[in-house]
Amino acid sequence: MLATTSIATHAQTGSKSLAERLGYARDAKLVIVHADDLGMTHSVNAASIKGLDSGLVTSASIMVPCPWFPEMADYAKAHQQADLGLHLTLTSERVFYRWGPVAPRDKVPSLVDSNGYFHLNWTETTHIDAKEVELELRAQIERAMAMGVRPTHLDSHQYRLFENGKDIFQSVLRVAHEYKLPVFLVRDWFSDRPYLESSLSPEDLVVDHTVTMEPGVRPDKWADFYTTALKNLQPGVTVFIIHLAFDDEEMRAATRERDTWGAAWRQRDFDFFSSEEFRHLVREQNIKLVTWRELAHAAR
Amino acid sequence: MLATTSIATHAQTGSKSLAERLGYARDAKLVIVHADDLGMTHSVNAASIKGLDSGLVTSASIMVPCPWFPEMADYAKAHQQADLGLHLTLTSERVFYRWGPVAPRDKVPSLVDSNGYFHLNWTETTHIDAKEVELELRAQIERAMAMGVRPTHLDSHQYRLFENGKDIFQSVLRVAHEYKLPVFLVRDWFSDRPYLESSLSPEDLVVDHTVTMEPGVRPDKWADFYTTALKNLQPGVTVFIIHLAFDDEEMRAATRERDTWGAAWRQRDFDFFSSEEFRHLVREQNIKLVTWRELAHAAR
Repeated sequence: MLATTSIATHAQTGSKSLAERLGYARDAKLVIVHADDLGMTHSVNAASIKGLDSGLVTSASIMVPCPWFPEMADYAKAHQQADLGLHLTLTSERVFYRWGPVAPRDKVPSLVDSNGYFHLNWTETTHIDAKEVELELRAQIERAMAMGVRPTHLDSHQYRLFENGKDIFQSVLRVAHEYKLPVFLVRDWFSDRPYLESSLSPEDLVVDHTVTMEPGVRPDKWADFYTTALKNLQPGVTVFIIHLAFDDEEMRAATRERDTWGAAWRQRDFDFFSSEEFRHLVREQNIKLVTWRELAHAAR
Repeated sequence: MLATTSIATHAQTGSKSLAERLGYARDAKLVIVHADDLGMTHSVNAASIKGLDSGLVTSASIMVPCPWFPEMADYAKAHQQADLGLHLTLTSERVFYRWGPVAPRDKVPSLVDSNGYFHLNWTETTHIDAKEVELELRAQIERAMAMGVRPTHLDSHQYRLFENGKDIFQSVLRVAHEYKLPVFLVRDWFSDRPYLESSLSPEDLVVDHTVTMEPGVRPDKWADFYTTALKNLQPGVTVFIIHLAFDDEEMRAATRERDTWGAAWRQRDFDFFSSEEFRHLVREQNIKLVTWRELAHAAR
């Protein structure tokens, strides 16, 4: 069973697993340490760049609609080898610091609130038009590429593109196929949302597992949470979704309405994933740190 | 001559000066200490709020298109007595941190660059459509009011609305008249740009002088510059245009491509205008600190 689920392209049967294609044993534990929300604030950018430069954070994704996106586009141009994807964004979930669509807002009315920002949240009554989603995603990718980013993959801010039905999911999939980019999709999600699996083509890349910090974990248990996850890794590709920033004035102000994914939270993520403890666990557990670029290359 | 130039509405003759209407002598020295660029970054907001709360900064104006505008809108709602205007913005002059129009960008194509941000700069070859300017200004004012700001006045980020010809100036004037808001205009500017004066109506408010820090002043001469200006004030209304922020990580990153109006510059402004030295000069020079709200009220 585990060997089967570690096969990482959707319809691949009988052939080599991604791990094998990358030159590892079939039961190797491959991990992408992936920071997201890049571009959101300078604090996020500075901490994420430090993580990427350390080699312990192997991949990251950037929010194109956010005001600090140009700082990350500049980094991407100067670091062509960095594994940077796009964190496709359709929400502006903070209260005192906000952003809106890249597409003209009168072309994507279902995506914006009465002040022209992306919705703070999507609720039962928010009608999101999948055609407008697709238009906005294309605008984000086009701006990124025009500004020098060569994305290695796509993922979704707050999972909105995956958790809101078949039409919206198929929008991102169509765009991903057109730009020949892998989308962050986890086999573990399929049982709850069958439309994810049924929408895929044979060549779509699917990773096996994901680990991400959840609200409710006490600050003093942060390292324990990640350590337990790293010691219990299953074979195949596991993506750690982490959120790096410094607990500084800008980040505290930008996230002050709630603690979840706030400044202190992100500082704790930074502290763990830049620690000797993490470096030691990677060695001890024989974990292979990989990137989306390597995965996509191996899957071809 | 001085008495005449201190008359503060455009066509007012023979009647009381603004100073007199405010209850001061005709030759009183009235000063608005005005911070601008609020909304640009959290650092600007935090320093400007500190200045306003001290009472030494009497007025300020907010950039509606900027991502930290919601933080200032929140402050404005909670501080209805604060003298807050709108710093109408049509440029995004920084490199690593950028913003764009409030109006749908396909409705204001002349105002945006190929990536959808406001132009970094307006050059000889930038064609700016005055109709699009007017549309964008209305969008900024409408968003501000919808989010709870009751502006006391209007001014122009980087003076773009005043320095680029009659058509653009008349756009802002038309909007100002419609919303019954005074526009920051200085009599000293009229000789260089006659279209300013010729466009005004009798009821338009005009201040006499303005003082603002200029590139080239050495950091150790900052206090000298302002002290000299304060000791040489002429009668009438003088507006000090200042730029407050803290010299912190966010501000340094946002302004790192040049020193002018950078993080250290703004920290120096903050240091002077929150100093005992400034407070003492105000008393010593018998300066009356006033607001745009008071001026507009007196001019009616």
